[in-house]
Amino acid sequence: MTSTGRPIDFRSDTVTRPDDVMRRAMAEAEVDDNVIGTDPTIAELERRAARTLGMPAALWTPSGTMANLIALSVHLQRGDRFLAMRGAHVLTNELGSAAWLAGGMPDLLEHDAGPGRCTPETLAAAIGHTGPYYTMRTTLLCLENTHNAAGGAVTPPDEHAQLLSVAKQAGLTVHLDGARIWHAAVALQVPPAALTVGVDSVSACFSKGLGAPVGSVVAGSEEFVEQGRRMRQMLGGGVRQGGVLAAACLVALGRIDELARTHEFAQRLAAGLAEHGWRVATPDTNIVLADVPDLTTALGWLQSLGIATVPMAGKVRFTTHRDLSAADIEEALRRIKTGA
Amino acid sequence: MTSTGRPIDFRSDTVTRPDDVMRRAMAEAEVDDNVIGTDPTIAELERRAARTLGMPAALWTPSGTMANLIALSVHLQRGDRFLAMRGAHVLTNELGSAAWLAGGMPDLLEHDAGPGRCTPETLAAAIGHTGPYYTMRTTLLCLENTHNAAGGAVTPPDEHAQLLSVAKQAGLTVHLDGARIWHAAVALQVPPAALTVGVDSVSACFSKGLGAPVGSVVAGSEEFVEQGRRMRQMLGGGVRQGGVLAAACLVALGRIDELARTHEFAQRLAAGLAEHGWRVATPDTNIVLADVPDLTTALGWLQSLGIATVPMAGKVRFTTHRDLSAADIEEALRRIKTGA
Amino acid sequence: MTSTGRPIDFRSDTVTRPDDVMRRAMAEAEVDDNVIGTDPTIAELERRAARTLGMPAALWTPSGTMANLIALSVHLQRGDRFLAMRGAHVLTNELGSAAWLAGGMPDLLEHDAGPGRCTPETLAAAIGHTGPYYTMRTTLLCLENTHNAAGGAVTPPDEHAQLLSVAKQAGLTVHLDGARIWHAAVALQVPPAALTVGVDSVSACFSKGLGAPVGSVVAGSEEFVEQGRRMRQMLGGGVRQGGVLAAACLVALGRIDELARTHEFAQRLAAGLAEHGWRVATPDTNIVLADVPDLTTALGWLQSLGIATVPMAGKVRFTTHRDLSAADIEEALRRIKTGA
Amino acid sequence: MTSTGRPIDFRSDTVTRPDDVMRRAMAEAEVDDNVIGTDPTIAELERRAARTLGMPAALWTPSGTMANLIALSVHLQRGDRFLAMRGAHVLTNELGSAAWLAGGMPDLLEHDAGPGRCTPETLAAAIGHTGPYYTMRTTLLCLENTHNAAGGAVTPPDEHAQLLSVAKQAGLTVHLDGARIWHAAVALQVPPAALTVGVDSVSACFSKGLGAPVGSVVAGSEEFVEQGRRMRQMLGGGVRQGGVLAAACLVALGRIDELARTHEFAQRLAAGLAEHGWRVATPDTNIVLADVPDLTTALGWLQSLGIATVPMAGKVRFTTHRDLSAADIEEALRRIKTGA
Repeated sequence: MTSTGRPIDFRSDTVTRPDDVMRRAMAEAEVDDNVIGTDPTIAELERRAARTLGMPAALWTPSGTMANLIALSVHLQRGDRFLAMRGAHVLTNELGSAAWLAGGMPDLLEHDAGPGRCTPETLAAAIGHTGPYYTMRTTLLCLENTHNAAGGAVTPPDEHAQLLSVAKQAGLTVHLDGARIWHAAVALQVPPAALTVGVDSVSACFSKGLGAPVGSVVAGSEEFVEQGRRMRQMLGGGVRQGGVLAAACLVALGRIDELARTHEFAQRLAAGLAEHGWRVATPDTNIVLADVPDLTTALGWLQSLGIATVPMAGKVRFTTHRDLSAADIEEALRRIKTGA
Repeated sequence: MTSTGRPIDFRSDTVTRPDDVMRRAMAEAEVDDNVIGTDPTIAELERRAARTLGMPAALWTPSGTMANLIALSVHLQRGDRFLAMRGAHVLTNELGSAAWLAGGMPDLLEHDAGPGRCTPETLAAAIGHTGPYYTMRTTLLCLENTHNAAGGAVTPPDEHAQLLSVAKQAGLTVHLDGARIWHAAVALQVPPAALTVGVDSVSACFSKGLGAPVGSVVAGSEEFVEQGRRMRQMLGGGVRQGGVLAAACLVALGRIDELARTHEFAQRLAAGLAEHGWRVATPDTNIVLADVPDLTTALGWLQSLGIATVPMAGKVRFTTHRDLSAADIEEALRRIKTGA
Repeated sequence: MTSTGRPIDFRSDTVTRPDDVMRRAMAEAEVDDNVIGTDPTIAELERRAARTLGMPAALWTPSGTMANLIALSVHLQRGDRFLAMRGAHVLTNELGSAAWLAGGMPDLLEHDAGPGRCTPETLAAAIGHTGPYYTMRTTLLCLENTHNAAGGAVTPPDEHAQLLSVAKQAGLTVHLDGARIWHAAVALQVPPAALTVGVDSVSACFSKGLGAPVGSVVAGSEEFVEQGRRMRQMLGGGVRQGGVLAAACLVALGRIDELARTHEFAQRLAAGLAEHGWRVATPDTNIVLADVPDLTTALGWLQSLGIATVPMAGKVRFTTHRDLSAADIEEALRRIKTGA
Repeated sequence: MTSTGRPIDFRSDTVTRPDDVMRRAMAEAEVDDNVIGTDPTIAELERRAARTLGMPAALWTPSGTMANLIALSVHLQRGDRFLAMRGAHVLTNELGSAAWLAGGMPDLLEHDAGPGRCTPETLAAAIGHTGPYYTMRTTLLCLENTHNAAGGAVTPPDEHAQLLSVAKQAGLTVHLDGARIWHAAVALQVPPAALTVGVDSVSACFSKGLGAPVGSVVAGSEEFVEQGRRMRQMLGGGVRQGGVLAAACLVALGRIDELARTHEFAQRLAAGLAEHGWRVATPDTNIVLADVPDLTTALGWLQSLGIATVPMAGKVRFTTHRDLSAADIEEALRRIKTGA
């Protein structure tokens, strides 16, 4: 049976639509050709994003996938081994481009320090020792904060610092997939730059929970950004009057604090699901993973109730976002309780 | 000495900015998440672009470079030999991605049928014969209409048909780089679909001369577009609420006929330059290539007059576009004549 | 202190040297240009190896690494997800070519059915379900028998059949890294073809324990081998009068049964090490892995005793082979016991 | 009608078979595992080849294709533009690996200084100027001496020096495909090292006209060779007891002067063909290209006379080599004259 009520969209926080303020900013954006010169609004966004992330420079990209792909392509040489947490977005959600295009051979870190995190000992063991010319060369650590497949899990600054210390002692480059780094900062009540200490590059998205229609950045040193700019052009990510999009990203950047509300939605949703007997962990941010006996059945049943979700790491993922309301959460819980 | 007059920008037709109509369309666009679902405005653009180009289906991309890259990646297997006119954009202006990423090994066709075009005999000879397993396999012909480095040169439908006939008899796939196919159609006074007869894929841009800030399409069969959609995601070209951009592309698609005015600008500019003793060919469309004794000197001198141009195939390229006026052309000619 | 006795070489079974019989066969080999035509001795080896492996056709390659690389390159499309046991040779010992060159994104299977093997349930769960266009596509299972990093561990035919059943039901292609498949067959007392049932391709080496100086094969369908022949040429693995090497491989192929002796060496070595208090598992074939408190120290100490070993998966790997004798094993144990 | 006489094999100088001296050297070669350690005979060959080529170090490879591929892979970054003579072996006979695997985008130099050679002016013009980040970056010149598709054409030291001068002034790396550099040295009566002055790397083959069954080298700086060794392993070109092959290469290296005889064969053949009215150029070395009205017909007719040739650059290629005799040349000419 299909619900007759309005659909409630928990598929992703990427579904958020630009509101009137954002659309007006886009309509009024000052623009120029950002391939052969520099679009002033993109330049302004890159400056402000770099500053917020605590990095020397930043580069706008049309997606978070491209932001990560550029970073990995710049950092990795053909065949380099790199380490990432099991289930990392760069391994499981970017169609293998970290391997076939950026050229890296991944190896997995287990989440033995909590969801989305490993211990420094596990990292050190995984890095291993350098061998002769015919052995793998481990050159990169890729972190993810918040960690999507671990349920939007947050890595706090002290654990981040410990992992960075191990990686740097071993001579590794570190990329941070910060698609939802704003969420981590809000949940931890620290500035985003507190979460990027020591990294060589970090990506961040304006289209995940903040309402911007299109746009991410990848930040790093000036030299990294210069190399990244060329790689962006190679991939076809160089755009002309991109200022219309950057204007929306600038609005999004001013709204980071509003994410706290979506975290409350997630906590209420998780608590409600637990009351109905669902197996869910308490969410750190805006993602709730529910462990169900049969995934396909569960997704279909929710769909029949007008509740849209997606599968993630073998579980049902509910993602809360700014286009939902407190009433939506209650209504979703009501439907799940009553099955109608 | 630097000109005190306003700068006149002939660098590219990619510099055109969205006007109020276009910005309003963007602000009012209906949007949705175009990665996990379908954005209605992108869908509308893809339908209309496919129809205009005479192809079954089309795929929006953030750039013409990505549109070409997707086509070549879908068509080519590792190491396949492909043929393109000397100076083709995919060879000389896309940072080698046709080779390292799409996997093709190019070979050159000479322009022996006029600028941007070769004879059917030249094509047939270049295709050659199929040899044993250890020999190159030629699988793709890449055409370009209008041909940028040949000065916006147009290939008429009958010559196109002859080349297609040779390619298809040899079992080749054909991609048409139609970044400026709208220009060719307007110059020839034929519908764009008359210029895509028989091709397996065609790219086309809305940001070259038509004012849209960001956006291109690559069109082909339904199956081609499905494979291309996956490749777009791999490259990081999948965007969320891209409808804000597609809305501008839809406005651009309705303005193709206005390109005729920019062709008149180019003819007037070429004639004026010739009067001042410059060596220029009569332009087919909106690109004027001037053959100068010393390229670097010429570019610098024009820059000092407030006239922005770019180098192309060893010549000075002037590109006319909708953000210029007839008065701009006369003013540019005046400065060139007077050197001030 | 360094041992004054003769060095005892447990580094690998790849160190075995051709004996007089093999060298004579090489000196008398009938040869021809195997790139532009067919070398008769290579052809004979390919026929006999295919028959022994129970496959329609086989292709000679200069190394096992190239044999695996050809198979993966033929089977995988850009970005395809493939599954392999944690520590698989294609993941950890081939310099990442499975990723950057063959184009695959690996995911790991845990050894939950014993060393080198997973349960059918684990495999089924890892394959997962097919999702929309923007999700990973799992297309290949890569097995390894014997499994090197798991200590030369053997997968018996019934477990092989169960894994094949799961893989084939899910539509996966299966490649078997059979670098040491001869060892598995001898240990299990089955013909090698009993261990390749259902696979799409299998690699096997003649230079690992059998004394041939250079040479491996990759076997599969006629069509697979034709595609592989082209890939071999691309990689620079096409050689001219390779019959001189194939002649040695043919001798090696006739010596498979002699491997049993090297398995006895391994069992004696493992038993002796255990008596001296080392932590070792009982070896299935010719590889003994010893778990030591400090790997670097242990390797150095053994080296000082004139005992050459290598690190593997964090342990000390002793590999027995035909150029060792029973007396060598006893002498090694004596040195380890006495520390001199 | 098919010839009843013995077949005369002009397909390639790669068809030469090892003679008794060479086979004995192979049978007696001292060997070791050349992946995990160093095979003494390979080491000796690498030292002697490096010295003969005038380079600091050299690396053995199983084929000339792999030697070139390693050099290009080490020198090129993704998307780098590189220049080579039209018809260069790396462009037309290596299945596109210079593009898809090494990552380069080729551009062609025309043979305007004679077969296989361009003028310094042509080279300088082709290199062009460095542009902004979104423009091609030209980093490598690939020369070929002798030039196969130009009929074994020789570039003399002074022309080589002029091209090197232009390339180095522009900051380019230079690789020399010297598959048949021994032929050039013999024809010019200079040491091979006179033909490598200034290059960053050079490949050379022992299986082309010298009788060695398998083996080439790529030479360059110590650092280049270290990087190349890793790339060789990646490609699957690392072999175990390769000394059996290197022993034959060492014999070949002592026989370079004997190539002069095969050049006389080529001159006699060309003169004889010209007498019979064939259009042939005077050969520089051991390759005779004949320009025929219909290639397929000509190849078939020769085959029917028991004369094996191959197509090359649209012509019939006859290659002379050490396994032919003066009588074979006369017999071939007799058959061509009489058509029987």
